[in-house]
Amino acid sequence: MKEDAVREKLATCTRIFAMQGLLGMFGHISAFLPESGRVVICPGAGADKAKARAEDMLVLDLNGHVLEGMGSLPREWPIHTELHRSRADALAVAHCHAHYSTLFAIASRPLHPVTMSGAIFADGVPLYRAAEFIDTPEHGRRLVEVIGNRRAVLLRCHGFVSVASSIEGMLHTSLVLEDNARKSVEALQLGDLHPLSRDECVRIEPTYPEARAKTHFTYMAIQEARWDRQPATGLGPPV
Amino acid sequence: MKEDAVREKLATCTRIFAMQGLLGMFGHISAFLPESGRVVICPGAGADKAKARAEDMLVLDLNGHVLEGMGSLPREWPIHTELHRSRADALAVAHCHAHYSTLFAIASRPLHPVTMSGAIFADGVPLYRAAEFIDTPEHGRRLVEVIGNRRAVLLRCHGFVSVASSIEGMLHTSLVLEDNARKSVEALQLGDLHPLSRDECVRIEPTYPEARAKTHFTYMAIQEARWDRQPATGLGPPV
Amino acid sequence: MKEDAVREKLATCTRIFAMQGLLGMFGHISAFLPESGRVVICPGAGADKAKARAEDMLVLDLNGHVLEGMGSLPREWPIHTELHRSRADALAVAHCHAHYSTLFAIASRPLHPVTMSGAIFADGVPLYRAAEFIDTPEHGRRLVEVIGNRRAVLLRCHGFVSVASSIEGMLHTSLVLEDNARKSVEALQLGDLHPLSRDECVRIEPTYPEARAKTHFTYMAIQEARWDRQPATGLGPPV
Amino acid sequence: MKEDAVREKLATCTRIFAMQGLLGMFGHISAFLPESGRVVICPGAGADKAKARAEDMLVLDLNGHVLEGMGSLPREWPIHTELHRSRADALAVAHCHAHYSTLFAIASRPLHPVTMSGAIFADGVPLYRAAEFIDTPEHGRRLVEVIGNRRAVLLRCHGFVSVASSIEGMLHTSLVLEDNARKSVEALQLGDLHPLSRDECVRIEPTYPEARAKTHFTYMAIQEARWDRQPATGLGPPV
Repeated sequence: MKEDAVREKLATCTRIFAMQGLLGMFGHISAFLPESGRVVICPGAGADKAKARAEDMLVLDLNGHVLEGMGSLPREWPIHTELHRSRADALAVAHCHAHYSTLFAIASRPLHPVTMSGAIFADGVPLYRAAEFIDTPEHGRRLVEVIGNRRAVLLRCHGFVSVASSIEGMLHTSLVLEDNARKSVEALQLGDLHPLSRDECVRIEPTYPEARAKTHFTYMAIQEARWDRQPATGLGPPV
Repeated sequence: MKEDAVREKLATCTRIFAMQGLLGMFGHISAFLPESGRVVICPGAGADKAKARAEDMLVLDLNGHVLEGMGSLPREWPIHTELHRSRADALAVAHCHAHYSTLFAIASRPLHPVTMSGAIFADGVPLYRAAEFIDTPEHGRRLVEVIGNRRAVLLRCHGFVSVASSIEGMLHTSLVLEDNARKSVEALQLGDLHPLSRDECVRIEPTYPEARAKTHFTYMAIQEARWDRQPATGLGPPV
Repeated sequence: MKEDAVREKLATCTRIFAMQGLLGMFGHISAFLPESGRVVICPGAGADKAKARAEDMLVLDLNGHVLEGMGSLPREWPIHTELHRSRADALAVAHCHAHYSTLFAIASRPLHPVTMSGAIFADGVPLYRAAEFIDTPEHGRRLVEVIGNRRAVLLRCHGFVSVASSIEGMLHTSLVLEDNARKSVEALQLGDLHPLSRDECVRIEPTYPEARAKTHFTYMAIQEARWDRQPATGLGPPV
Repeated sequence: MKEDAVREKLATCTRIFAMQGLLGMFGHISAFLPESGRVVICPGAGADKAKARAEDMLVLDLNGHVLEGMGSLPREWPIHTELHRSRADALAVAHCHAHYSTLFAIASRPLHPVTMSGAIFADGVPLYRAAEFIDTPEHGRRLVEVIGNRRAVLLRCHGFVSVASSIEGMLHTSLVLEDNARKSVEALQLGDLHPLSRDECVRIEPTYPEARAKTHFTYMAIQEARWDRQPATGLGPPV
């Protein structure tokens, strides 16, 4: 995909994340172009993500030097550069202070798949245990170690990071993670959970559902196009 | 009722379900015309249910062959065809990933009637235990066995299926199920529940309240007519 | 107050209740004119309470005969007539299927004052234990016995009834009851509560805060006047 | 800062608090001008805070005498005057009946920092134990004693008071407190929490993040500028 198209899609994705309450004062998402080694990333803390446009996206190299763009660089840019550098399948990365996922990062309780869609987390979601900003390449490399080859990692008292091989996958993975977290925490009121086993997950979802992720992106983009930009009106129906 | 009228009513019902957060990226509803053996069903994953029109409805035969319509066929169409085929009183069927009902399908806890309206679930709501998509007629027949003659069934880590003898009844039954689930899970914070006994349910609701279901449908249709199509503005007041 | 003014104020109050999610498909509110023995009441199940106007109000006598108005009579009209008949201070009555209050009526747990405003419930909120519609004068008289001289009563698996000596007080009492219920159920997650003692309540609120109720009504009426009639946009800030 | 600029900023801040559901029927915020000894404060109970303008702000002296303004003086003005008088760093003060913070004030459970932003509460949040309105200078002085040099205090069965050295800081501190409270209460469903230790807090936030507070204020002001003034649409994404 050309860089212009990536900027356009990442901007749409930024607005969808804002609509869903996953990006606000904090949080950022990025996409990597391996052929050029350039990272496209949304602007950082305080930017109005609900109105992000393609031209608001920043472009970085893998050392965090801003090559293009005027907005503020996210403080935790090394989350993105280190994941893009080290995993060939990490072409898109999100960092969010998402409400329900963060609850697990506060209670340090393992997060298991409890929905059909959640089967993509068959390998679990590890926890980055240090309560610190990931604002140096060294911290970024530690994050890379903790996440291993998994799709997401929780950051203690902080939020989550998710990775996918496409922007659509990064959106789908993030929405499913947050929904799976909300359903887990609320279902615990009913007693012990019966999460999906690893075998069940693999049977439900033998490979990553890339086609469904693309459908999901299109569905959310339709909602976003008519969103009235009121903060609390975008929290969509359950995944 | 003529097929055109069924299409129109099912489209309105689809938009009401979307408004209430019961249909979104996933989920689908259908109605059966026994005289022609034709099934009218809303389009599947990713369709913009909040704007569904009569002409967006698909028509299937009981073997899942699309007879009319351009949209995507829901993957789990056998839920609908097998229930319509086997139960004379299942003229309308809903499958939803509804948030609160799904909590019970995650914790595998029985769902009992706890509201006056919930008395329609005097016979309980069974659980389909396999975590799998119901995307073959064989799975559909297994669902028919599990639900028996009851009004709804929970699908493990997945959602619910409800049946009624009218589109209005399918809406009413689904809204009451979800409200009953939410109230149950939240009331458990207060200690043990005192659900309605089977006898109390029968005394409250000797037969299915079809007239109230029709009033409920009309009430929701009024809300839907002025809905601004913002995802989070349609979650209505408690049933 | 003249009957015309009562109709106008009760219609405004009906819309405020709808905005707050306390009236929807179900629930109704009334006011009594002791000099004429006439009851003004909003229409029943399915009426679009969010758009209720003065001319939609019904007028009854104390035996439930409709004297004026075209809308549907609420099935549980005896709640209103029997309370108006028997308590001189019950000039306004509300019956709501309010979400959080109903949780207490499901778990049969006593509801204690836990907010400064909640001090108006110093004498507690009793429970009407039968799960039945209050649709006969006999049931209404039983309700009168259970509530005694208190401000509100919970109905098992059903909702609440509140009484006050003015429409403004009926609104204030209802909003405070629901807020007190929500805060109680959610605070229980933190461990045992320390509700206000009877002595503390009396010290905080020696008499019913009628002036504050009037201010509250005016405040809510300002919100209602600009309400966009979307179901989920009216749930106001905490009391 | 000139008094006119303080009025303007406090009015914007009042509207932001209203948008976030932190000010409604109750609650008030103030700023102090030490050079003139004058207190700027928003109007009290029942004022339409969502539409507050600079000219609606009241000006008091430290004894609660109204020097300018027509609106109703908040009943609990001594909260503001006594804090402004006694702490040189308390140039801005908020009193809110915020939902989640109040839960801790009902259950009398200590509130610990559980988010990166919450590290500003390294010294804890004490509890004012008397259930009483703080409507006399004597009560105000007791509040000053209880809060000590900390950033916030919970009021039993009532709400919170927060202080900061700027209006932006008062907003940031209040939003972070409420978010930290919500995440704590919901995470407890998952089991014991692992809050940030005092050492971790100091490492994360060695000094008060005044620059981030200013960015946060600007971010919220952008949201407020396009807010449609519907009560439930302003509840923003998680901090």
